[in-house]
Amino acid sequence: MKLSEIAAALDARVEGDETIVIRRAVHPSEAEGPEDLALAMDKDLLALLPGSKAVAAVVAEGAELPDSIRGRIVVKRPRYAMAGLLDVFEKPVHAEPGVHPQAYVAPDAVVADGVSIAPFAYIGPRARIGAGTIVLPHVTVSADAVIGEGSLLHPGARIGERVVLGARCIIHPNAAVGNDGFSFVTPEPGSVESAKTTGRVVGTNVLLRRVNSIGTVILGDDVEIGAGATIDRGTVTATRIGSGTKIDNLVQIGHNVQIGTNCMLCGHVGVAGSTTIGDRVVLAGKVGVADHVKIGSDAVVAANSGVGTDIPAKQVYMGYPAVPRARAFEQYKGLARLKRLFAEVADLKNRLHAVDGQGKAPAAPAEAGQD
Amino acid sequence: MKLSEIAAALDARVEGDETIVIRRAVHPSEAEGPEDLALAMDKDLLALLPGSKAVAAVVAEGAELPDSIRGRIVVKRPRYAMAGLLDVFEKPVHAEPGVHPQAYVAPDAVVADGVSIAPFAYIGPRARIGAGTIVLPHVTVSADAVIGEGSLLHPGARIGERVVLGARCIIHPNAAVGNDGFSFVTPEPGSVESAKTTGRVVGTNVLLRRVNSIGTVILGDDVEIGAGATIDRGTVTATRIGSGTKIDNLVQIGHNVQIGTNCMLCGHVGVAGSTTIGDRVVLAGKVGVADHVKIGSDAVVAANSGVGTDIPAKQVYMGYPAVPRARAFEQYKGLARLKRLFAEVADLKNRLHAVDGQGKAPAAPAEAGQD
Amino acid sequence: MKLSEIAAALDARVEGDETIVIRRAVHPSEAEGPEDLALAMDKDLLALLPGSKAVAAVVAEGAELPDSIRGRIVVKRPRYAMAGLLDVFEKPVHAEPGVHPQAYVAPDAVVADGVSIAPFAYIGPRARIGAGTIVLPHVTVSADAVIGEGSLLHPGARIGERVVLGARCIIHPNAAVGNDGFSFVTPEPGSVESAKTTGRVVGTNVLLRRVNSIGTVILGDDVEIGAGATIDRGTVTATRIGSGTKIDNLVQIGHNVQIGTNCMLCGHVGVAGSTTIGDRVVLAGKVGVADHVKIGSDAVVAANSGVGTDIPAKQVYMGYPAVPRARAFEQYKGLARLKRLFAEVADLKNRLHAVDGQGKAPAAPAEAGQD
Repeated sequence: MKLSEIAAALDARVEGDETIVIRRAVHPSEAEGPEDLALAMDKDLLALLPGSKAVAAVVAEGAELPDSIRGRIVVKRPRYAMAGLLDVFEKPVHAEPGVHPQAYVAPDAVVADGVSIAPFAYIGPRARIGAGTIVLPHVTVSADAVIGEGSLLHPGARIGERVVLGARCIIHPNAAVGNDGFSFVTPEPGSVESAKTTGRVVGTNVLLRRVNSIGTVILGDDVEIGAGATIDRGTVTATRIGSGTKIDNLVQIGHNVQIGTNCMLCGHVGVAGSTTIGDRVVLAGKVGVADHVKIGSDAVVAANSGVGTDIPAKQVYMGYPAVPRARAFEQYKGLARLKRLFAEVADLKNRLHAVDGQGKAPAAPAEAGQD
Repeated sequence: MKLSEIAAALDARVEGDETIVIRRAVHPSEAEGPEDLALAMDKDLLALLPGSKAVAAVVAEGAELPDSIRGRIVVKRPRYAMAGLLDVFEKPVHAEPGVHPQAYVAPDAVVADGVSIAPFAYIGPRARIGAGTIVLPHVTVSADAVIGEGSLLHPGARIGERVVLGARCIIHPNAAVGNDGFSFVTPEPGSVESAKTTGRVVGTNVLLRRVNSIGTVILGDDVEIGAGATIDRGTVTATRIGSGTKIDNLVQIGHNVQIGTNCMLCGHVGVAGSTTIGDRVVLAGKVGVADHVKIGSDAVVAANSGVGTDIPAKQVYMGYPAVPRARAFEQYKGLARLKRLFAEVADLKNRLHAVDGQGKAPAAPAEAGQD
Repeated sequence: MKLSEIAAALDARVEGDETIVIRRAVHPSEAEGPEDLALAMDKDLLALLPGSKAVAAVVAEGAELPDSIRGRIVVKRPRYAMAGLLDVFEKPVHAEPGVHPQAYVAPDAVVADGVSIAPFAYIGPRARIGAGTIVLPHVTVSADAVIGEGSLLHPGARIGERVVLGARCIIHPNAAVGNDGFSFVTPEPGSVESAKTTGRVVGTNVLLRRVNSIGTVILGDDVEIGAGATIDRGTVTATRIGSGTKIDNLVQIGHNVQIGTNCMLCGHVGVAGSTTIGDRVVLAGKVGVADHVKIGSDAVVAANSGVGTDIPAKQVYMGYPAVPRARAFEQYKGLARLKRLFAEVADLKNRLHAVDGQGKAPAAPAEAGQD
């Protein structure tokens, strides 16, 4: 592929020798020769170009290049250009056409054209696999599940019974979609109910009765579920994840949760049952969201936060418990200044004692800050 | 099934036409006709009944219903009634009787009557599978493991060697029971030992020696292990989880941990090695518990808490580090009022300066709160 | 094995009858007879010896033993001795020599001598398996992956395409190494970019464009990856984990992360993309580390901390956001004393009002502490 062709695919301009033929896109330090295109869109990578064997590079506007770089592609928004570059140089997974003889496909499963089903994949009774979908080794597609066209199921992905995936979904290794909800109930009000209402444990959980999950999970189009993530089915109706939403590794989504479109839920996020999340919401790593909470569209929650209350649309929240970002920063600042505040109050006490003779006269100045 | 029969199964009373024949239990908005029983036990769902195609509903005491509902079941404790309803309308997983020819069962494994072993399930040497147990696709039951009767192993569940499951256990997709403990030791005291005792890093971990795990995991009866959860084996003896305890998705239980009966550990909970948890303890989502800690029976720990110390029985703890709930609320309240406190102290300083002439006279009132 | 031989293997001294023949190492309470060696290196276990059926024990220096113990091994550093003992009494996993006929090995995969490949293991095209490596059931080794010699892949481990493992690596059940990074970009600056810079949501994520991952994961020698852990591949180059580093269950490592040698990352740790971690770093359970952060060698981060900034070498950090340990303790102490501080300031206000007549005279003493 010529440099000019790559630039055209990115809608970017090319400078210098646009006829250089490129075979790989690489980190500048890993270039082995003139066929390697060095990706140097940020400052740190740009600094590596003088020592690189590359003669072609992708750079941001205004970058200064060594003479060794004979041709360059200049991009406006480097992160976005990266997406285009990695479409051009994508390394798709190995998949052989058709159903491998060491796969299991139930006699009444329906497999569309152009599907790849690998060794040890299991397609259960009445399941339907859309056209062009790739099912890699050790995938379980359970009875009555429906997989949209052009989807990609990585090794060890578990698709539960009756679960529905839209088109072009990607389920990463060992993700499990359609597990039973974690739902148990005590005959009389149990310890959690009294702890929430009175702050004390009154009833005790001498019997935990299982609440079966008869609902399912419905994913829209272009949804990704990260490696090891777990999505529970609804109790009666469906847990739903809207089109374009991306869920990272080891995320847990509880039963009955409703998530809108184009959200991003980062690693280790946990969302408890029956919570509703709008469109384009971003939950950073390790955020926990309580049950029955509502998070408005376009809200952003900072990493490690614990969300126990509703969040309005377009708000940025952080902390534990999560509060608006400005308030959280104020609290951190206050915490950092606490030591000084204790000293100041001790000083005021001493001085006021000298004025009004009341209160206890401290034995020594060192008392401040001790406990 | 007639409405009267369902009511009898729930030990609830029926009002109106008790002869209505029901085929499905549904969310009110998903009812398609008179054979769908609308579950409307809470206010939000009740409000959907006027627009629903259902003519029969399950409701709480005192609910007001539209005329379209010709028969109703009235329940006292809606959450508990739900459990009964979903027993009646359960949708059990697809399982074919016997050992599928594409399964692997070691010649010396012992498989009881009425067992279902799916394609690509692996039953290792000398493993024993109890009567009526269902082993779904891609399950590994390793050598010498024992699975109690009536258990259900979901796709991708991993049962380690010598692990023992009681009767009626449910292991959800991709859960792993019986992994090696995370246990390493340095020849001389390492960085963690000095960090804990002196607060500084003295020794460094130039060699990490592995401590093998030769113990196992023993689960009681009616234990559930959530999707993607991981339970490590004991170093020498067994990690134990008592009967009736329910463990949610992506929970991590370290080596040698002892958990009592009827506990509930919610999503992303982590319990470090050698910790002891009593009976009926509830750990909400994302709670972390340090190693060698003791948590008393009936204790409840709020979501996202970090437990570093023992918790007495029947106490409600929260926060990081976790403290009794009342104290935690007091701290949050204090944090929220900190800004005001800084302003008040600044005001006192100014006023006391006017009285005693000591301290620094602030340049401007705006100084308060700055840093 | 004679007691004297075990002592020799541990480089420890033996006292009493050194000819006792031992078959098992056990918890004192689980000893069944004279062939069981009771491990009683700590006080709690030592206390169990009088009631134990063991006649031989391993104990720490200075331990007082009941007369029933006829022979003993005395060790200096009990935790380290445990590692040696459990090498002697290791219970290796069941593995049959050669490639099982129910495994799948691609015709062009390269399998070295002395390898064990279990039923339902999948070895993809051009993959290479080093000498003496054990591949247990349901393992996926994807195309072009390289597994070093003497490695052990537990059931359900997923090794992605082109991933490289050094010698003697252990991948625990259901771990996934080589997943796509979680990397998406909006055409215009999105909500996270504005939230980080301005604290408010300006742009919205109406389109999330996928950034493909064409890099890989490279593990050094003697690396362990815990059950259910997920390691993402680099975007262009490799995510790297250095020799001797141990990663616990359910840990998430983002794309492009670089981790040095001999680190320990405990359960539920999450490390976001492009972060760099030095050598011998310890991250305790549930620590979250933001993207593009640098953590210096020998640093220790306490459990549940959220790291958002660089950490220098040899420092101990804790809290959310993580700060040096001494400062964190100071903050916790301050928090615990806040209630008293509010009361003191209220008292000062009252007294100063009596002196200068300014400010509001409080209606009642109870006002302090209210909100």
